Amino acid sequence: MHKTLTDKVINRLTLYHSILSDYIEKKIEYISSPQIAEFLHVDNTQVRKDIAMIGYKGKCKVGYKTDELKNQIEEALKFKTVKTAVIVGAGNLGMALAKYDNFEAYGFKITAMFDNDPQKIGIKINDKEVFNLTELMEIKEKFGVKIAILTVPRKFAQEVTDFLVKSGIKYIWNFTPCVLSVPCDIQVWNENLIGNFLQFTVDVDDN
Amino acid sequence: MHKTLTDKVINRLTLYHSILSDYIEKKIEYISSPQIAEFLHVDNTQVRKDIAMIGYKGKCKVGYKTDELKNQIEEALKFKTVKTAVIVGAGNLGMALAKYDNFEAYGFKITAMFDNDPQKIGIKINDKEVFNLTELMEIKEKFGVKIAILTVPRKFAQEVTDFLVKSGIKYIWNFTPCVLSVPCDIQVWNENLIGNFLQFTVDVDDN
Repeated sequence: MHKTLTDKVINRLTLYHSILSDYIEKKIEYISSPQIAEFLHVDNTQVRKDIAMIGYKGKCKVGYKTDELKNQIEEALKFKTVKTAVIVGAGNLGMALAKYDNFEAYGFKITAMFDNDPQKIGIKINDKEVFNLTELMEIKEKFGVKIAILTVPRKFAQEVTDFLVKSGIKYIWNFTPCVLSVPCDIQVWNENLIGNFLQFTVDVDDN
Repeated sequence: MHKTLTDKVINRLTLYHSILSDYIEKKIEYISSPQIAEFLHVDNTQVRKDIAMIGYKGKCKVGYKTDELKNQIEEALKFKTVKTAVIVGAGNLGMALAKYDNFEAYGFKITAMFDNDPQKIGIKINDKEVFNLTELMEIKEKFGVKIAILTVPRKFAQEVTDFLVKSGIKYIWNFTPCVLSVPCDIQVWNENLIGNFLQFTVDVDDN
Protein backbone atom coordinates (compact mmCIF):
# COMPACT_ATOMS: atom_id res chain seq x y z
CA MET A 1 0.00 0.00 0.00
CA HIS A 2 1.26 3.48 -0.75
CA LYS A 3 -0.08 6.98 -0.37
CA THR A 4 -2.25 8.59 -3.02
CA LEU A 5 0.00 9.83 -5.77
CA THR A 6 -0.43 13.37 -7.05
CA ASP A 7 -0.75 14.16 -10.75
CA LYS A 8 2.82 15.41 -10.89
CA VAL A 9 4.25 12.31 -9.25
CA ILE A 10 2.31 10.08 -11.66
CA ASN A 11 3.55 12.14 -14.55
CA ARG A 12 7.17 11.85 -13.45
CA LEU A 13 6.86 8.13 -12.72
CA THR A 14 5.74 7.50 -16.32
CA LEU A 15 8.83 9.38 -17.49
CA TYR A 16 11.07 7.27 -15.22
CA HIS A 17 9.31 4.25 -16.71
CA SER A 18 10.26 5.39 -20.19
CA ILE A 19 13.91 5.87 -19.17
CA LEU A 20 13.94 2.43 -17.52
CA SER A 21 12.59 0.81 -20.70
CA ASP A 22 15.48 2.31 -22.64
CA TYR A 23 18.01 1.11 -20.05
CA ILE A 24 16.57 -2.40 -20.03
CA GLU A 25 16.67 -2.49 -23.82
CA LYS A 26 20.37 -1.64 -23.57
CA LYS A 27 20.74 -4.40 -20.95
CA ILE A 28 21.80 -1.97 -18.21
CA GLU A 29 20.98 -3.50 -14.84
CA TYR A 30 21.15 -0.53 -12.49
CA ILE A 31 20.26 3.16 -12.59
CA SER A 32 20.91 5.83 -9.96
CA SER A 33 18.64 8.69 -8.94
CA PRO A 34 21.15 11.31 -10.22
CA GLN A 35 21.12 9.55 -13.60
CA ILE A 36 17.33 9.74 -13.79
CA ALA A 37 17.39 13.32 -12.51
CA GLU A 38 19.84 14.40 -15.18
CA PHE A 39 17.59 13.15 -17.99
CA LEU A 40 14.66 15.17 -16.70
CA HIS A 41 16.58 18.18 -15.40
CA VAL A 42 15.06 17.74 -11.97
CA ASP A 43 16.59 17.39 -8.53
CA ASN A 44 17.63 13.87 -7.54
CA THR A 45 16.02 14.29 -4.11
CA GLN A 46 12.73 14.56 -6.02
CA VAL A 47 13.45 11.33 -7.89
CA ARG A 48 14.26 9.49 -4.67
CA LYS A 49 11.12 10.83 -2.99
CA ASP A 50 8.87 9.80 -5.92
CA ILE A 51 10.30 6.29 -5.94
CA ALA A 52 10.01 5.96 -2.17
CA MET A 53 6.33 6.90 -2.54
CA ILE A 54 5.69 3.66 -4.45
CA GLY A 55 7.54 1.66 -1.84
CA TYR A 56 10.72 0.84 -3.74
CA LYS A 57 14.22 1.16 -2.32
CA GLY A 58 17.51 1.39 -4.18
CA LYS A 59 20.68 -0.35 -3.14
CA CYS A 60 23.44 1.69 -1.60
CA LYS A 61 26.08 2.74 -4.19
CA VAL A 62 24.54 0.85 -7.16
CA GLY A 63 21.10 2.45 -7.25
CA TYR A 64 17.86 0.94 -8.48
CA LYS A 65 17.56 -2.38 -10.28
CA THR A 66 16.06 -1.34 -13.63
CA ASP A 67 13.68 -4.28 -14.14
CA GLU A 68 12.45 -4.26 -10.54
CA LEU A 69 11.79 -0.52 -10.50
CA LYS A 70 10.02 -0.72 -13.87
CA ASN A 71 7.75 -3.46 -12.50
CA GLN A 72 7.07 -1.53 -9.33
CA ILE A 73 5.99 1.55 -11.32
CA GLU A 74 3.77 -0.62 -13.51
CA GLU A 75 2.11 -2.04 -10.44
CA ALA A 76 1.64 1.32 -8.71
CA LEU A 77 0.14 2.91 -11.83
CA LYS A 78 -1.85 -0.21 -12.78
CA PHE A 79 -0.33 -0.56 -16.24
CA LYS A 80 -1.33 -4.23 -16.22
CA THR A 81 -5.01 -3.37 -15.76
CA VAL A 82 -6.56 -3.42 -19.23
CA LYS A 83 -8.47 -0.23 -20.01
CA THR A 84 -10.52 -0.74 -23.15
CA ALA A 85 -11.05 2.35 -25.28
CA VAL A 86 -12.23 3.47 -28.70
CA ILE A 87 -11.18 6.48 -30.76
CA VAL A 88 -14.05 8.64 -31.98
CA GLY A 89 -12.97 10.68 -34.98
CA ALA A 90 -10.62 9.20 -37.60
CA GLY A 91 -8.96 12.46 -38.66
CA ASN A 92 -5.25 13.21 -38.36
CA LEU A 93 -5.23 13.27 -34.59
CA GLY A 94 -7.34 10.11 -34.26
CA MET A 95 -5.04 8.34 -36.71
CA ALA A 96 -1.92 9.57 -34.90
CA LEU A 97 -3.28 8.18 -31.63
CA ALA A 98 -4.28 4.89 -33.30
CA LYS A 99 -0.71 4.50 -34.51
CA TYR A 100 0.75 5.27 -31.11
CA ASP A 101 1.72 1.78 -29.98
CA ASN A 102 2.88 2.99 -26.59
CA PHE A 103 -0.69 3.00 -25.27
CA GLU A 104 -0.60 -0.77 -24.89
CA ALA A 105 2.37 -0.61 -22.55
CA TYR A 106 0.21 1.44 -20.19
CA GLY A 107 -2.74 -0.91 -20.34
CA PHE A 108 -4.81 1.03 -22.86
CA LYS A 109 -6.33 -1.25 -25.46
CA ILE A 110 -7.79 0.63 -28.42
CA THR A 111 -10.31 -1.78 -29.94
CA ALA A 112 -11.92 0.29 -32.67
CA MET A 113 -12.27 3.70 -34.28
CA PHE A 114 -15.41 5.54 -35.30
CA ASP A 115 -16.19 8.14 -37.92
CA ASN A 116 -19.15 9.21 -40.04
CA ASP A 117 -17.24 9.59 -43.31
CA PRO A 118 -18.31 6.67 -45.60
CA GLN A 119 -14.85 6.80 -47.25
CA LYS A 120 -13.26 5.88 -43.95
CA ILE A 121 -15.62 3.16 -42.74
CA GLY A 122 -13.98 -0.25 -43.03
CA ILE A 123 -10.38 0.90 -43.32
CA LYS A 124 -7.88 -0.25 -40.72
CA ILE A 125 -5.36 2.00 -38.98
CA ASN A 126 -2.71 -0.03 -37.19
CA ASP A 127 -5.11 -3.00 -37.03
CA LYS A 128 -7.95 -0.88 -35.67
CA GLU A 129 -11.02 -0.89 -37.89
CA VAL A 130 -13.02 2.29 -38.49
CA PHE A 131 -16.75 1.77 -37.88
CA ASN A 132 -19.75 3.99 -38.38
CA LEU A 133 -20.66 5.77 -35.18
CA THR A 134 -24.08 4.08 -35.29
CA GLU A 135 -22.31 0.82 -34.40
CA LEU A 136 -20.84 2.20 -31.20
CA MET A 137 -23.32 0.62 -28.83
CA GLU A 138 -22.80 -2.86 -30.27
CA ILE A 139 -19.00 -2.64 -30.18
CA LYS A 140 -19.04 -1.12 -26.72
CA GLU A 141 -20.99 -4.11 -25.40
CA LYS A 142 -18.88 -6.62 -27.30
CA PHE A 143 -15.52 -5.38 -26.03
CA GLY A 144 -16.54 -3.84 -22.71
CA VAL A 145 -15.47 -0.37 -23.76
CA LYS A 146 -15.46 2.21 -20.95
CA ILE A 147 -13.39 5.02 -22.47
CA ALA A 148 -13.92 7.11 -25.60
CA ILE A 149 -11.06 9.18 -26.95
CA LEU A 150 -12.73 12.14 -28.62
CA THR A 151 -10.90 13.62 -31.62
CA VAL A 152 -13.75 14.97 -33.75
CA PRO A 153 -13.76 18.53 -35.15
CA ARG A 154 -14.77 21.25 -32.71
CA LYS A 155 -18.20 21.84 -34.23
CA PHE A 156 -19.30 18.22 -33.72
CA ALA A 157 -17.83 17.83 -30.25
CA GLN A 158 -20.96 18.39 -28.14
CA GLU A 159 -23.30 16.49 -30.46
CA VAL A 160 -21.02 13.45 -30.54
CA THR A 161 -20.53 13.67 -26.77
CA ASP A 162 -24.31 13.52 -26.26
CA PHE A 163 -24.33 10.38 -28.38
CA LEU A 164 -21.44 8.82 -26.42
CA VAL A 165 -23.24 9.48 -23.15
CA LYS A 166 -26.47 7.99 -24.53
CA SER A 167 -24.50 4.93 -25.60
CA GLY A 168 -23.24 4.35 -22.07
CA ILE A 169 -19.65 5.60 -22.32
CA LYS A 170 -18.48 6.65 -18.85
CA TYR A 171 -15.07 8.22 -19.48
CA ILE A 172 -14.28 10.71 -22.21
CA TRP A 173 -10.72 11.72 -23.02
CA ASN A 174 -11.45 15.01 -24.74
CA PHE A 175 -8.91 16.17 -27.32
CA THR A 176 -11.24 18.80 -28.79
CA PRO A 177 -10.78 22.40 -27.68
CA CYS A 178 -14.39 22.44 -26.39
CA VAL A 179 -15.54 22.27 -22.82
CA LEU A 180 -18.17 19.53 -23.00
CA SER A 181 -21.45 19.56 -21.17
CA VAL A 182 -22.13 16.11 -19.63
CA PRO A 183 -24.16 14.59 -16.76
CA CYS A 184 -22.44 14.38 -13.36
CA ASP A 185 -21.69 10.64 -13.54
CA ILE A 186 -19.62 11.03 -16.72
CA GLN A 187 -15.93 11.73 -16.28
CA VAL A 188 -14.31 14.05 -18.80
CA TRP A 189 -10.57 14.47 -18.97
CA ASN A 190 -9.77 17.60 -20.98
CA GLU A 191 -6.51 17.01 -22.79
CA ASN A 192 -5.81 20.65 -22.70
CA LEU A 193 -2.59 20.70 -24.70
CA ILE A 194 -2.29 24.44 -24.71
CA GLY A 195 -2.90 24.71 -20.97
CA ASN A 196 -0.18 22.20 -20.26
CA PHE A 197 2.28 23.89 -22.53
CA LEU A 198 1.57 27.51 -21.58
CA GLN A 199 3.17 27.25 -18.16
CA PHE A 200 6.34 26.23 -19.94
CA THR A 201 6.41 29.18 -22.32
CA VAL A 202 5.73 31.96 -19.86
CA ASP A 203 9.29 33.20 -20.30
CA VAL A 204 9.37 32.84 -24.10
CA ASP A 205 8.85 36.16 -25.83
CA ASP A 206 9.13 37.56 -29.28
CA ASN A 207 12.11 39.83 -28.66
CA MET B 1 0.71 42.17 -10.65
CA HIS B 2 -0.48 38.81 -9.40
CA LYS B 3 1.03 35.82 -7.71
CA THR B 4 2.76 33.05 -9.62
CA LEU B 5 0.11 30.76 -11.03
CA THR B 6 0.47 27.03 -10.57
CA ASP B 7 0.15 24.58 -13.46
CA LYS B 8 -3.32 23.59 -12.36
CA VAL B 9 -4.57 27.16 -12.14
CA ILE B 10 -3.17 27.92 -15.61
CA ASN B 11 -4.84 24.78 -16.92
CA ARG B 12 -8.22 25.74 -15.48
CA LEU B 13 -7.92 29.35 -16.64
CA THR B 14 -7.48 28.17 -20.25
CA LEU B 15 -10.65 26.10 -19.85
CA TYR B 16 -12.54 29.13 -18.48
CA HIS B 17 -11.21 31.02 -21.48
CA SER B 18 -12.69 28.42 -23.80
CA ILE B 19 -16.09 28.64 -22.07
CA LEU B 20 -15.96 32.45 -22.24
CA SER B 21 -15.26 32.34 -25.98
CA ASP B 22 -18.40 30.24 -26.47
CA TYR B 23 -20.47 32.62 -24.34
CA ILE B 24 -19.19 35.67 -26.20
CA GLU B 25 -19.96 33.98 -29.51
CA LYS B 26 -23.51 33.51 -28.26
CA LYS B 27 -23.53 37.19 -27.20
CA ILE B 28 -24.00 36.37 -23.50
CA GLU B 29 -22.67 39.27 -21.46
CA TYR B 30 -22.29 37.75 -18.00
CA ILE B 31 -21.29 34.40 -16.52
CA SER B 32 -21.35 33.31 -12.88
CA SER B 33 -18.82 31.15 -11.05
CA PRO B 34 -21.40 28.35 -10.51
CA GLN B 35 -22.03 28.31 -14.26
CA ILE B 36 -18.34 27.90 -15.01
CA ALA B 37 -18.02 25.35 -12.19
CA GLU B 38 -20.85 23.25 -13.59
CA PHE B 39 -19.18 22.94 -17.00
CA LEU B 40 -15.98 21.63 -15.44
CA HIS B 41 -17.52 19.65 -12.57
CA VAL B 42 -15.44 21.60 -10.07
CA ASP B 43 -16.37 23.57 -7.00
CA ASN B 44 -17.36 27.18 -7.59
CA THR B 45 -15.14 28.34 -4.72
CA GLN B 46 -12.26 27.06 -6.81
CA VAL B 47 -13.43 29.08 -9.80
CA ARG B 48 -13.73 32.24 -7.73
CA LYS B 49 -10.28 31.69 -6.21
CA ASP B 50 -8.64 31.14 -9.62
CA ILE B 51 -10.20 34.29 -11.02
CA ALA B 52 -9.26 36.33 -7.96
CA MET B 53 -5.67 35.15 -8.49
CA ILE B 54 -5.51 37.09 -11.77
CA GLY B 55 -6.96 40.16 -10.10
CA TYR B 56 -10.45 40.15 -11.58
CA LYS B 57 -13.62 40.67 -9.59
CA GLY B 58 -17.16 39.73 -10.52
CA LYS B 59 -20.19 41.91 -9.87
CA CYS B 60 -22.55 40.94 -7.10
CA LYS B 61 -25.55 38.96 -8.38
CA VAL B 62 -24.66 39.16 -12.11
CA GLY B 63 -21.21 37.55 -12.05
CA TYR B 64 -18.30 38.18 -14.41
CA LYS B 65 -18.45 40.24 -17.57
CA THR B 66 -17.53 37.69 -20.26
CA ASP B 67 -15.41 39.93 -22.49
CA GLU B 68 -13.55 41.54 -19.57
CA LEU B 69 -12.74 38.23 -17.90
CA LYS B 70 -11.59 36.76 -21.22
CA ASN B 71 -9.24 39.72 -21.71
CA GLN B 72 -7.94 39.46 -18.18
CA ILE B 73 -7.10 35.77 -18.67
CA GLU B 74 -5.38 36.55 -21.96
CA GLU B 75 -3.28 39.17 -20.26
CA ALA B 76 -2.38 36.99 -17.27
CA LEU B 77 -1.37 34.06 -19.49
CA LYS B 78 0.28 36.27 -22.11
CA PHE B 79 -1.81 35.03 -25.02
CA LYS B 80 -0.99 38.25 -26.88
CA THR B 81 2.74 37.53 -26.73
CA VAL B 82 3.66 35.89 -30.01
CA LYS B 83 5.51 32.61 -29.54
CA THR B 84 6.97 31.53 -32.86
CA ALA B 85 7.25 27.78 -33.36
CA VAL B 86 7.87 25.14 -36.00
CA ILE B 87 6.59 21.58 -36.20
CA VAL B 88 9.30 18.99 -36.76
CA GLY B 89 7.80 15.81 -38.23
CA ALA B 90 4.96 16.00 -40.77
CA GLY B 91 3.29 12.69 -39.88
CA ASN B 92 -0.28 12.34 -38.61
CA LEU B 93 0.36 14.05 -35.31
CA GLY B 94 2.36 16.90 -36.87
CA MET B 95 -0.41 17.42 -39.41
CA ALA B 96 -3.10 17.33 -36.73
CA LEU B 97 -1.26 20.02 -34.78
CA ALA B 98 -0.71 22.10 -37.94
CA LYS B 99 -4.46 22.04 -38.55
CA TYR B 100 -5.25 23.00 -34.98
CA ASP B 101 -6.16 26.66 -35.44
CA ASN B 102 -6.64 27.22 -31.74
CA PHE B 103 -2.90 27.64 -31.24
CA GLU B 104 -3.09 31.16 -32.65
CA ALA B 105 -5.60 32.25 -30.02
CA TYR B 106 -2.97 31.46 -27.40
CA GLY B 107 -0.19 33.32 -29.15
CA PHE B 108 1.49 30.33 -30.79
CA LYS B 109 2.42 31.08 -34.37
CA ILE B 110 3.41 27.98 -36.32
CA THR B 111 5.52 29.30 -39.18
CA ALA B 112 6.70 26.11 -40.88
CA MET B 113 6.92 22.33 -40.74
CA PHE B 114 9.92 20.09 -41.31
CA ASP B 115 10.35 16.54 -42.49
CA ASN B 116 12.94 14.49 -44.35
CA ASP B 117 10.51 12.72 -46.68
CA PRO B 118 11.04 14.17 -50.21
CA GLN B 119 7.37 13.42 -50.97
CA LYS B 120 6.30 15.85 -48.28
CA ILE B 121 8.73 18.71 -48.93
CA GLY B 122 6.92 21.65 -50.49
CA ILE B 123 3.36 20.67 -49.57
CA LYS B 124 1.31 23.00 -47.41
CA ILE B 125 -0.76 21.95 -44.41
CA ASN B 126 -3.15 24.70 -43.33
CA ASP B 127 -0.88 27.27 -45.02
CA LYS B 128 2.24 25.92 -43.32
CA GLU B 129 4.87 24.76 -45.79
CA VAL B 130 6.87 21.59 -45.18
CA PHE B 131 10.62 22.16 -45.54
CA ASN B 132 13.59 19.83 -45.46
CA LEU B 133 15.13 19.72 -42.02
CA THR B 134 18.40 21.01 -43.51
CA GLU B 135 16.69 24.39 -43.95
CA LEU B 136 15.84 24.72 -40.27
CA MET B 137 18.64 27.12 -39.38
CA GLU B 138 17.72 29.54 -42.17
CA ILE B 139 14.00 29.55 -41.33
CA LYS B 140 14.72 29.82 -37.64
CA GLU B 141 16.74 33.00 -38.22
CA LYS B 142 14.23 34.44 -40.69
CA PHE B 143 11.19 34.07 -38.41
CA GLY B 144 12.84 34.22 -34.99
CA VAL B 145 11.74 30.70 -34.08
CA LYS B 146 12.33 29.76 -30.46
CA ILE B 147 10.16 26.64 -30.09
CA ALA B 148 10.23 23.31 -31.93
CA ILE B 149 7.25 20.98 -31.61
CA LEU B 150 8.73 17.52 -31.98
CA THR B 151 6.48 14.89 -33.58
CA VAL B 152 8.98 12.57 -35.29
CA PRO B 153 8.89 8.77 -34.85
CA ARG B 154 10.43 7.47 -31.64
CA LYS B 155 13.56 6.08 -33.28
CA PHE B 156 14.59 9.46 -34.72
CA ALA B 157 13.71 11.51 -31.63
CA GLN B 158 17.20 11.86 -30.10
CA GLU B 159 19.00 12.34 -33.39
CA VAL B 160 16.61 15.09 -34.48
CA THR B 161 16.81 16.68 -31.02
CA ASP B 162 20.60 16.88 -31.30
CA PHE B 163 20.11 18.66 -34.62
CA LEU B 164 17.55 21.08 -33.14
CA VAL B 165 19.92 21.95 -30.32
CA LYS B 166 22.79 22.47 -32.76
CA SER B 167 20.52 24.76 -34.79
CA GLY B 168 19.90 26.97 -31.76
CA ILE B 169 16.36 25.92 -30.78
CA LYS B 170 15.88 26.67 -27.07
CA TYR B 171 12.47 25.14 -26.28
CA ILE B 172 11.32 21.69 -27.36
CA TRP B 173 7.71 20.58 -26.96
CA ASN B 174 8.28 16.86 -27.05
CA PHE B 175 5.38 14.73 -28.31
CA THR B 176 7.53 11.62 -28.76
CA PRO B 177 7.43 8.97 -26.04
CA CYS B 178 11.21 9.38 -25.53
CA VAL B 179 12.95 11.14 -22.72
CA LEU B 180 15.39 13.37 -24.62
CA SER B 181 18.94 14.05 -23.58
CA VAL B 182 19.73 17.78 -23.98
CA PRO B 183 22.14 20.37 -22.55
CA CYS B 184 21.05 22.23 -19.42
CA ASP B 185 20.12 25.47 -21.16
CA ILE B 186 17.55 23.74 -23.39
CA GLN B 187 14.02 23.48 -22.03
CA VAL B 188 12.09 20.33 -22.86
CA TRP B 189 8.39 20.05 -22.15
CA ASN B 190 7.40 16.38 -22.30
CA GLU B 191 3.84 16.20 -23.57
CA ASN B 192 3.34 13.05 -21.65
CA LEU B 193 -0.18 12.22 -22.79
CA ILE B 194 -0.31 8.93 -21.01
CA GLY B 195 0.98 10.38 -17.77
CA ASN B 196 -1.69 13.06 -17.84
CA PHE B 197 -4.44 10.63 -18.57
CA LEU B 198 -3.41 7.82 -16.20
CA GLN B 199 -4.40 9.72 -13.08
CA PHE B 200 -7.88 9.93 -14.51
CA THR B 201 -8.22 6.22 -15.19
CA VAL B 202 -7.01 4.87 -11.87
CA ASP B 203 -10.53 3.73 -11.06
CA VAL B 204 -11.29 2.28 -14.50
CA ASP B 205 -10.90 -1.47 -14.57
CA ASP B 206 -11.73 -4.30 -16.89
CA ASN B 207 -14.44 -5.91 -14.80
